[in-house]
Amino acid sequence: MAKTAHFLAESARVDEAAVQALPGSRKVYVEGSRPDIRVPFREISLSPTKTSGADEQNPPLLVYDTSGPYTAPDTDIDLRKGLPELRRAWIEERDDTEFLDGPTSEYGQRRANDPMLAPLRFDLTRTPRRAKPGKNVTQLHYARQGIITPEMEFIAIRENQRRQALGTEEVERILGHQHPGEGFGARLPEEITPEFVRQEVAAGRAIIPNNINHPESEPMIIGRNFLVKINGNLGNSAVTSSIEEEVDKMTWGIRWGADTIMDLSTGQNIHETREWIIRNAPVPIGTVPIYQALEKVNGVAEDLTWEVFRDTLIEQAEQGVDYFTIHAGVLLRYVPLTAKRVTGIVSRGGSIMAKWCLFHHRESFLYTHFEEICEICKQYDVAFSLGDGLRPGSVADANDEAQMAELKTLGELTKIAWKHDVQVMIEGPGHVPMHLVKENMDKQLEYCDEAPFYTLGPLVTDIAPGYDHITSGIGAAMIGWYGCAMLCYVTPKEHLGLPNKDDVKTGIITYKIAAHAADLAKGHPAAQRRDNALSKARFEFRWEDQFNLGLDPDTAREYHDETLPKDSAKVAHFCSMCGPKFCSMKISQEVRDYAKDKGLDGDQEAVMKGMEEQAEKFRQQGAELYQEV
Amino acid sequence: MAKTAHFLAESARVDEAAVQALPGSRKVYVEGSRPDIRVPFREISLSPTKTSGADEQNPPLLVYDTSGPYTAPDTDIDLRKGLPELRRAWIEERDDTEFLDGPTSEYGQRRANDPMLAPLRFDLTRTPRRAKPGKNVTQLHYARQGIITPEMEFIAIRENQRRQALGTEEVERILGHQHPGEGFGARLPEEITPEFVRQEVAAGRAIIPNNINHPESEPMIIGRNFLVKINGNLGNSAVTSSIEEEVDKMTWGIRWGADTIMDLSTGQNIHETREWIIRNAPVPIGTVPIYQALEKVNGVAEDLTWEVFRDTLIEQAEQGVDYFTIHAGVLLRYVPLTAKRVTGIVSRGGSIMAKWCLFHHRESFLYTHFEEICEICKQYDVAFSLGDGLRPGSVADANDEAQMAELKTLGELTKIAWKHDVQVMIEGPGHVPMHLVKENMDKQLEYCDEAPFYTLGPLVTDIAPGYDHITSGIGAAMIGWYGCAMLCYVTPKEHLGLPNKDDVKTGIITYKIAAHAADLAKGHPAAQRRDNALSKARFEFRWEDQFNLGLDPDTAREYHDETLPKDSAKVAHFCSMCGPKFCSMKISQEVRDYAKDKGLDGDQEAVMKGMEEQAEKFRQQGAELYQEV
Repeated sequence: MAKTAHFLAESARVDEAAVQALPGSRKVYVEGSRPDIRVPFREISLSPTKTSGADEQNPPLLVYDTSGPYTAPDTDIDLRKGLPELRRAWIEERDDTEFLDGPTSEYGQRRANDPMLAPLRFDLTRTPRRAKPGKNVTQLHYARQGIITPEMEFIAIRENQRRQALGTEEVERILGHQHPGEGFGARLPEEITPEFVRQEVAAGRAIIPNNINHPESEPMIIGRNFLVKINGNLGNSAVTSSIEEEVDKMTWGIRWGADTIMDLSTGQNIHETREWIIRNAPVPIGTVPIYQALEKVNGVAEDLTWEVFRDTLIEQAEQGVDYFTIHAGVLLRYVPLTAKRVTGIVSRGGSIMAKWCLFHHRESFLYTHFEEICEICKQYDVAFSLGDGLRPGSVADANDEAQMAELKTLGELTKIAWKHDVQVMIEGPGHVPMHLVKENMDKQLEYCDEAPFYTLGPLVTDIAPGYDHITSGIGAAMIGWYGCAMLCYVTPKEHLGLPNKDDVKTGIITYKIAAHAADLAKGHPAAQRRDNALSKARFEFRWEDQFNLGLDPDTAREYHDETLPKDSAKVAHFCSMCGPKFCSMKISQEVRDYAKDKGLDGDQEAVMKGMEEQAEKFRQQGAELYQEV
Repeated sequence: MAKTAHFLAESARVDEAAVQALPGSRKVYVEGSRPDIRVPFREISLSPTKTSGADEQNPPLLVYDTSGPYTAPDTDIDLRKGLPELRRAWIEERDDTEFLDGPTSEYGQRRANDPMLAPLRFDLTRTPRRAKPGKNVTQLHYARQGIITPEMEFIAIRENQRRQALGTEEVERILGHQHPGEGFGARLPEEITPEFVRQEVAAGRAIIPNNINHPESEPMIIGRNFLVKINGNLGNSAVTSSIEEEVDKMTWGIRWGADTIMDLSTGQNIHETREWIIRNAPVPIGTVPIYQALEKVNGVAEDLTWEVFRDTLIEQAEQGVDYFTIHAGVLLRYVPLTAKRVTGIVSRGGSIMAKWCLFHHRESFLYTHFEEICEICKQYDVAFSLGDGLRPGSVADANDEAQMAELKTLGELTKIAWKHDVQVMIEGPGHVPMHLVKENMDKQLEYCDEAPFYTLGPLVTDIAPGYDHITSGIGAAMIGWYGCAMLCYVTPKEHLGLPNKDDVKTGIITYKIAAHAADLAKGHPAAQRRDNALSKARFEFRWEDQFNLGLDPDTAREYHDETLPKDSAKVAHFCSMCGPKFCSMKISQEVRDYAKDKGLDGDQEAVMKGMEEQAEKFRQQGAELYQEV
């Protein structure tokens, strides 16, 4: 409480350092078919390539940008006011929603009317929105009727990485080169169109999580025929953390590339923490409602009831939560299957439900009331993230009977959700050795009719606590390649403690690596442009460009400066590995210049002849093209 | 020079903190068929599992140990004296070698006789050893004659991870559980015997790098039907670093698990630096002799000659280098194939040879004198690491014509080396997107007749400078699974600067993760025991055991203590993620206890019946088994 009060006293501005644009970058917007479809990108400007003749321009590179208005120029963010309601007009013109007088959940009303909570409460007077009676406001519902929403068009522009200035023919030869991918069933089109987005959503292969009560969010899509997405978790716990820290972690996480954020709070003031996060989040927010429901019954799992849970769903849906993790696949008969495991049940939600089922000897209310949950979700467009409550917590337990039994049930629930036009993705493990990762992915596609898969890692070994961002980053990259749509990050503190801001950043960057590696391997159109632009900068010793094209320019620059701190080294045509005396890149440039001069890129015989003829000349040149800086 | 003098003044002791045993561990030796075959292991002792009845003992776990005598109890290491000559008797009893009067290389003699170098020189008066005239002293030569050397027996014991105390039946059920691997052609036996080691070496599928002039080394094997190995690089450069730092990096690297060390020095006093490293290294040392040869001709590649190179090979072979990287596959006609690449030639050795070939318009002396190089290697048992001078430096250039052309030539050279009974492994890239990794591995096996593959990463994307231990760790784990025998580490400073000790450790741990993940996926017998032991400790909240079973106990403990610093938290039956109020592991334990009590592990019907009968009892129990600590 003390910390929160302190936070509110401080005018609720975000940390300046955290919101300025990344180095060498500026926010640009690409306009769609109407002026209010303005899709944000980060434009990285590049310096020209020095040649013996005229400088060769390198076109700026546009990259996907999750950071929202925080990195826009002249932004004056006031966390008390929240972000602008980007999607408000789109929602309203569909004319299928209405404002409520206030929260309709019992708990939401109680919190709103508790004068003790005033100092914690978000400033804005906000009225929740809900579907008009009989209406279904999900993007899946629209998609199935053949409607391309502004959200879908926004996404089509956003996913289209090729939108950017073109360079010279030689630059384009390099930047445009892309290895054909191996999709494992992914069908990536040459051009991602609004109609393609609609089709994928309609087929259930992709979801657009955007609650009508979270109009601040910039639309994004989760599906295996799009860019692989990543999620970052935050949330206070009984042990530590404050609202201030959680909002701070959210803005920090999206700065480095989190596509969605899950608020997993289990401690004090969950309701108010969530309100602060949603109002200030340009990305979808997911939650695990059972966590809060458990708090409401004082942590006693067996005291949970459908009524408490239902009220929690409505409370959160009216705040604007974009997707709910629901562990409805933990069936009573699956629980004993975990008894002989090395690590039993490791999902919090799964263990809560297992305990409830055992205690009452009944199927859980999540399962028995699943259609009613669908009814709630379709009034707000909350997507399902069907939780894997029986996921393995060790490689020993990977792909076992309990896990697969639950996955089949999640597949059955998917069909029920689709009957209601509610969007669904499926959560996956966890801990899986490399050779079992593909089997897990394939079974998910089979059992769940290609609904998007959303996995935590998986960790491919258990022997490296302190490095589980890496053990899991390996599995994440692989399962992304095999078809997983979103990867839930893991930080270095996994299994050990709560992540701080550094850990959050490390987790995000590791997962951006995994997701991008998967995009390359799948052959997402133009994913390789960024690699090629960076490699070209590296080869040409454009150090600043190399830093700025990377996922973390600050760390790259810092590492470089540790060995060669002088500013002049940033334009040096050598690096600290070999030093100025000898450099492979330099020699390679000489080879290239030599070949170019002599036209040595025709057939092999001509090449050899040309080389022979020119060898003497080369000897006479002396060959030191390197210019001391 | 100043730094080196300082080093020598300080009695040349290693840093105490760096050589003590890892927490909870002690060095143990397993004896072979003769008393001087004593194979080192690290024994991690574990605390008992608390149960409602008597404590259940957890047997100690033996793990592979690369750290040599440094972590042995009561070790008094004096770097000036070097390590004991473990293999001396084995070499001598074969009676096929003889001592030389001194270095036979011209350069070695010059350095030995230069009074100016006295302060830099290693203390020990050492006489190099060489094969008697007409003798071949390679392990491959012995293996092909059916001889099982002590080195081979040593290795068989070392690779056998199952040698350890056994626990109770329940503990063994958990520790012994192993997912059958997918070997991609790897043929892992249930038990690794000395005869199996011999067969693999004889077939050329594995190598034992141990120069007769490096008797200090503990034998190890590199081959895809054994544990995946990792290499750590060190070496001074023209820009920075001293002998002291390099020796320090070596002892640091093997502490964390480097199986071999490559000394890539390019700066001052390469000869003396190497001597210090070899005399103190319990692991094989590799070099790239062309680096030093280039220094001898003042960095002018075109001035390199066969004579200078040959003298360098003999100089280094007589110091005890265990494997040579030789870029003999860079043929003149392949050089123009790199001209249109995004990143040209990025291998230092490759670019040196390319420049030489272009300048002289001839095939390199490495290629034309390859049989003479074999003649040298077989007199000392130096193994080849045939360098990939044309490896791709970006994902754009992966698996291209230049790379594959060179790989085929390396295959031809392999056959020549084998004709001389010289051991060979093949170096590989580099930068390769995930979906091309397997193709690269498969081509290597095909072109090089299953000689072991030794790759740098590969990096699966280029967009994360500062995190290339991770981008490459992903590719390393995958190629290890597909059959790569050794993985050359990459540190976070790759492409940016020279690694410091922290970077070396991070690189090593990342690569131990990749190698172990590969061992699991391949199904190396008993590799999963360590995962299972750690997961069991995690499930039972044996925090200290969880830390100590990990690859980096220090970091795990530090991370844990950041959130829950009190000592009592180390025995707490909860962790900081959920706090004491609710804990999934705790509930899971309750489920397990419940199932066990009721005998719920029979068939499904009985289970359901049992559960129903007992549900009321469970409700009455209250179920809070958790004991406050």
